Amino acid sequence: MPMGETELTCLSIGEAAALISKQRLSPVKLTEAVLRRVEELNPKLNAYLTVVAQAAMAEARRAESEIRRGRHRGPLHGIPIAIKDNIWTGGVRTTAGSKILREFVPSEDATAVRRLKRAGAIVIGKTNLHEFAYGVTTVNPHYGATRNPWNQERIAGGSSGGSAAALASGICAGSVGTDTGGSVRIPAALCGVVGLKATLGRVSCHGSVPLAPSFDHVGPMARTVGDVAILLRAIAGHDSRDATTVAIPVPDFAAGLKGAGRKKTALRIGWPRDYFFERVEGEILEAVKAAARQFEKLGATIEEVPLPHVAESVDPSTHIALAEARAVHENAGYFPAHAAEYSEETRKRLEMGADVRAVDYLKALEFRKVVRGDFEKAFERVDAILTPTTPIAAPGMDDAMISVGGEQEHVRMALLRMNRPSNFTGLPAISILCGFTHSRLPIGLQLIGRAFEEAPLLQIAHLYEQATEWHTMRPKLP
Amino acid sequence: MPMGETELTCLSIGEAAALISKQRLSPVKLTEAVLRRVEELNPKLNAYLTVVAQAAMAEARRAESEIRRGRHRGPLHGIPIAIKDNIWTGGVRTTAGSKILREFVPSEDATAVRRLKRAGAIVIGKTNLHEFAYGVTTVNPHYGATRNPWNQERIAGGSSGGSAAALASGICAGSVGTDTGGSVRIPAALCGVVGLKATLGRVSCHGSVPLAPSFDHVGPMARTVGDVAILLRAIAGHDSRDATTVAIPVPDFAAGLKGAGRKKTALRIGWPRDYFFERVEGEILEAVKAAARQFEKLGATIEEVPLPHVAESVDPSTHIALAEARAVHENAGYFPAHAAEYSEETRKRLEMGADVRAVDYLKALEFRKVVRGDFEKAFERVDAILTPTTPIAAPGMDDAMISVGGEQEHVRMALLRMNRPSNFTGLPAISILCGFTHSRLPIGLQLIGRAFEEAPLLQIAHLYEQATEWHTMRPKLP
Repeated sequence: MPMGETELTCLSIGEAAALISKQRLSPVKLTEAVLRRVEELNPKLNAYLTVVAQAAMAEARRAESEIRRGRHRGPLHGIPIAIKDNIWTGGVRTTAGSKILREFVPSEDATAVRRLKRAGAIVIGKTNLHEFAYGVTTVNPHYGATRNPWNQERIAGGSSGGSAAALASGICAGSVGTDTGGSVRIPAALCGVVGLKATLGRVSCHGSVPLAPSFDHVGPMARTVGDVAILLRAIAGHDSRDATTVAIPVPDFAAGLKGAGRKKTALRIGWPRDYFFERVEGEILEAVKAAARQFEKLGATIEEVPLPHVAESVDPSTHIALAEARAVHENAGYFPAHAAEYSEETRKRLEMGADVRAVDYLKALEFRKVVRGDFEKAFERVDAILTPTTPIAAPGMDDAMISVGGEQEHVRMALLRMNRPSNFTGLPAISILCGFTHSRLPIGLQLIGRAFEEAPLLQIAHLYEQATEWHTMRPKLP
Repeated sequence: MPMGETELTCLSIGEAAALISKQRLSPVKLTEAVLRRVEELNPKLNAYLTVVAQAAMAEARRAESEIRRGRHRGPLHGIPIAIKDNIWTGGVRTTAGSKILREFVPSEDATAVRRLKRAGAIVIGKTNLHEFAYGVTTVNPHYGATRNPWNQERIAGGSSGGSAAALASGICAGSVGTDTGGSVRIPAALCGVVGLKATLGRVSCHGSVPLAPSFDHVGPMARTVGDVAILLRAIAGHDSRDATTVAIPVPDFAAGLKGAGRKKTALRIGWPRDYFFERVEGEILEAVKAAARQFEKLGATIEEVPLPHVAESVDPSTHIALAEARAVHENAGYFPAHAAEYSEETRKRLEMGADVRAVDYLKALEFRKVVRGDFEKAFERVDAILTPTTPIAAPGMDDAMISVGGEQEHVRMALLRMNRPSNFTGLPAISILCGFTHSRLPIGLQLIGRAFEEAPLLQIAHLYEQATEWHTMRPKLP
């Protein structure tokens, strides 16, 4: 029985790829279906800033013809994907959500985009984000807010909000975002999809508009852990144009997931005693506890782990982010030269960046080793550390403050809290869906893993996903 | 005819090694001769802070016995060397020229020391330096000044002043110093020996007391270019304990020198149009010009090269050095906790380090690429760039200001001027002797080379050295 168009747009990359490789699904049909859905939904969600329908259709036809000739390139061949609009796409405008780059057309693709295209993926457009990726709401002053597909009065999270909303609403099959303090994981959590920040040095940042280079990551987003594994394999690996990338082998992350659910291994999951559970909304805490119980059912043991220095990393993390963002914007000639073209929020943060002392910046860099040491010690005893991705579900469109565990807190600080430690340490972290609030907003579960051990981290996330149904749920959309 | 003891102490490493390998010179005799000379001269020169005579003699006997059994390890086997006292020697006090570390005994050798010992070198002692290597005079407030063997009323330069004085006076055959802004090259120039700062990442800094990690280098010092080549080969190479070291092959630098003088290659030497010749004492300028003419005689062409951004690197270089030094001393718990134990000079500089803004620090790091670009462009046309190492010869012991080209200038700024650009860019630079002033003070010639091309740089320096007699001259000493 042929699938309806809306059903097509709900397929995971893995499902679509299986059909495409057997020539039972046409990349042209799939891309058409997704583009049609973009036309319907994007005016409501504002997930895309730019859609390249014609170019995408041309690529889809090319993919189809290649596959017909028996040249199937792999699981991304013919798959429609979206690229966050701070990642360069050669010949296609890349605004970074800013007014300053409103007309900027890169002459080449970012390394991640180039690798995705080489794997056969079809770029259908560029997704909305927080201005210069410097925030967590994707309430963009220049291009409008992205709306959460589960409740359009709620934010999608950010800064990769457009990518998360597009995935949740089926208007792309996979995406690539950036994560400097949680910008992949926060919107993934708030929109109920999967987002991974791999280890610092695993994925090239060449061609992504920098925010704070010590913390910047390019990361895959999708509707399932398996899809994220497929995307990660495509984009990961050493790149001579990003000196932070490490020349170590890139495993076949997706192949590593097969059968992961069947093994009853002695999986050990860490429950952090410090920082991560200090202030969490009740519904979120319950969902994360239920996830821990689910892991136990799967044969895992849950062990409390101390991370005594993580709480002290907040100020050092802020020093690094503020100072580097200011230096990046000054070096690029954007700030203060074009200060009037920024939102007040971003402008203020860039102004604050000038006040950080170099010695505090350097001490902050040094303190990373201490916090990394906390995690390394924990990882002697456990395979992954489990936390909420965010202590709250998606806030309202205009909320600046929000109640968390009975206390009023800035939305920004609340959403960043669980995410920034992994940018500070460079350790890999994934957010997956682990339930819904009573008002039917998604809840994100974060799993933090060992450096360059994304493969076991993905296996653990996949194990949970396979045992639950959350990832099969879709928002009600017209 | 057997050599006298003083003659023994004048041998180059290469000469001594040739005799040792043929068992015509005993490492025990050589070490004894050098240690006896240390006893005579060190009270006058204050080149050594610590002499480990007994341990050195034991090692010399071990070397002799190994060599007798046919186990000659190579050109450093049985050669007495000195280590700057900010480089760790396991079990031997390492003061860094500071009061704070007066009693510090490292539990292990620095990587460079370990590699030298593995090559068979015999450590006879630890050499005096500027307090914490943070200055250029080696007038040390805690351990006394090192005196210049050519004129004991003059400074030896710094911060590796003890090593340079020991080499010039024959009380070691080779040494290893550190260079953050010229600290190997300045004393080499002022004492008339050879000092090399290799490319950043070529030599491990593990176990050297840090000053400003972005600029810190460990570097070889000796009486000839050939000896520096031997030392460099021993200490160079990737080290898992210093993440800045690069895993590229280490050539046999000394072997590369053989026959270098016979080739009439089309050597191209760059004469920098900007910065390096702006303010130089007349005698120094004449000696450097004569060196250029000597290169022409050897078949080289001299070409003016622009380096338009080097002058602008002074402030960024200062920002990086001040901020990193402050952070290092804060992170170590030395400053401000033990502020009273520093000289006023160092304390003031550490205080200034707190005022650097992170954004200026980060912009300075970025500006390195611009200045590096200047050099890379020049190196498209020339093989090395020639400058004076210092614009003046050795100043007097108490000089704070000095006349340079008719203008009064701080001794510190004058001595640093030609040296800091290579720390800022990370490019390799060598100082060799190219003449004497009328008052018989040595004049240093600096040659700057391409990144990781120390081999051709050494060849060029060797070519000059072979064609001239300067390196054979010795100071008059009792």
